[in-house]
Amino acid sequence: MLGIKEIASYLPENKISNYDKKEKFEMDDDFIENKIGVRCQAIKEIDEKASDLCVKAFEILLKKQNIDKKEIDCCIVVTQNPDYNIPHTSAIVHGKLELSQQCACFDISLGCSGYVYGLSAIISFMKNNCLEHGLLFTADPYSDIIDSEDKNTALLFGDGATVTYIGKDGIFIPKDFSFGTNGKDYRELFCEEKLYMNGRAVFNFTATTIPKHIQQLLEKNGLEDKDIDKYVLHQGSKYIVDTIRKRLKVSEDKVPFDMHEYGNTVSSSIPIILEKEMLKEENKRFLISGFGVGLSWGSAIIEKV
Amino acid sequence: MLGIKEIASYLPENKISNYDKKEKFEMDDDFIENKIGVRCQAIKEIDEKASDLCVKAFEILLKKQNIDKKEIDCCIVVTQNPDYNIPHTSAIVHGKLELSQQCACFDISLGCSGYVYGLSAIISFMKNNCLEHGLLFTADPYSDIIDSEDKNTALLFGDGATVTYIGKDGIFIPKDFSFGTNGKDYRELFCEEKLYMNGRAVFNFTATTIPKHIQQLLEKNGLEDKDIDKYVLHQGSKYIVDTIRKRLKVSEDKVPFDMHEYGNTVSSSIPIILEKEMLKEENKRFLISGFGVGLSWGSAIIEKV
Repeated sequence: MLGIKEIASYLPENKISNYDKKEKFEMDDDFIENKIGVRCQAIKEIDEKASDLCVKAFEILLKKQNIDKKEIDCCIVVTQNPDYNIPHTSAIVHGKLELSQQCACFDISLGCSGYVYGLSAIISFMKNNCLEHGLLFTADPYSDIIDSEDKNTALLFGDGATVTYIGKDGIFIPKDFSFGTNGKDYRELFCEEKLYMNGRAVFNFTATTIPKHIQQLLEKNGLEDKDIDKYVLHQGSKYIVDTIRKRLKVSEDKVPFDMHEYGNTVSSSIPIILEKEMLKEENKRFLISGFGVGLSWGSAIIEKV
Repeated sequence: MLGIKEIASYLPENKISNYDKKEKFEMDDDFIENKIGVRCQAIKEIDEKASDLCVKAFEILLKKQNIDKKEIDCCIVVTQNPDYNIPHTSAIVHGKLELSQQCACFDISLGCSGYVYGLSAIISFMKNNCLEHGLLFTADPYSDIIDSEDKNTALLFGDGATVTYIGKDGIFIPKDFSFGTNGKDYRELFCEEKLYMNGRAVFNFTATTIPKHIQQLLEKNGLEDKDIDKYVLHQGSKYIVDTIRKRLKVSEDKVPFDMHEYGNTVSSSIPIILEKEMLKEENKRFLISGFGVGLSWGSAIIEKV
């Protein structure tokens, strides 16, 4: 059955510290550690584009997994910071990786819910077209669109990219997905030239919509908290992850928090954590949940074969 | 079975004539009629965005088909000229149409192959997530990115949008898809600020790759020319459509040419024609084929139930 065979992540080594911005933004250690939860932001080189980050993630994947590039027949890039609008970034990645001409490529435009949607989209598309070797990339270099003077966004985001290798003998299989959208409020998280975020509105949306949505997905699948080994939530901020966890009444050890040293990597946040958690023997069933730009959300149950 | 229930198209009433540009670009009537095949280009209002064109296409759909907006559970917009990069245009359309929160929305970034990919993506996604009422929009307002002094592009493109309603009792069902990509040559059709097109290179790609690709799809499905009622080809230009038709050795009446009065509408070109051809009793089986930006191509066999 089609599922996740491997995940690889790339995070730029270059970091900028939020502790250096304490005076500028009048914040204390508790704010950095426990409210936003970002000590450092991973920042790409200025001239690096989304496709470059994807290629770096793929190079890491190649070290972990034996992949015949000629066999790749599907390549999807999830991004809202494409290299250009024309063509799609997946075509540029296709060219740089020298993939076969018998490869379906397209981009999906989504933000923080992008990995969950992308996972369903690539598996559905591959299944229905009898494709066997897929690459699902996430890459959203927000450093290009952040106003460094805007406290709402300047401390939060980090650059990164991931690639998920989808194939027939998947180790983890997505079992059920659930999706939602509230397009009326899209201007709460919005970019014309630089990113604008109404932090309060986005927090309120997340805190009210997401716990209920996750609870419904569990009930729909006849699952309870004890049946989930890890909840892999989009790392919006420490405060957001903590709030969802508390409202779900889930213990802290079941909800990994990982963004301290690189920041909110948008659609890459879930696969960065999944990559690590998939290795742990005790994790048989994940619930993943992404939410943000759109406003958009999506969650899934993922089980070990 | 999930399939196409209805298609609606919107083309702006505002037209600009290529006959008014004869002197400027030193071209004769034969060039306008038979080489590019575009007498007039349909041009949107300057401040109209992709989402506005989608809403107009949807309003036309509502006149043709009884749709309960509350039931729409999937909404995909195919575009490379989104309203903004953040959020996805499908979220904006979702908000404007006041769709339900239980609606999955995302954008697909693809150009002239976008309808074929999008059709497979939405049906696959809906099928695998048990969704029942989907809207597939195409909208690529190229007038925003055309350099009016560039003869390679200034005469060719028209603005437009379409919406395809996907549901359980489809009238036409896609049977088989085939996709391809050549990302190495993406710079032949490319946009940083204004669209650049190497007309010769794009023509050569189309004339060599697409007839072979279509032939292979027919053979894979055990079909011959006599089994196809209409070939609905992306309307790149009259010369491109004619060249593919001749190389396939297909008679002229089986390959609709329709762009004379509005131009190359990118991902909307195929559904604009399909909408008309689906009404004709004699059309039981279509072959559709899109090709362009990426470079990317996709074809499908579509059959009447």
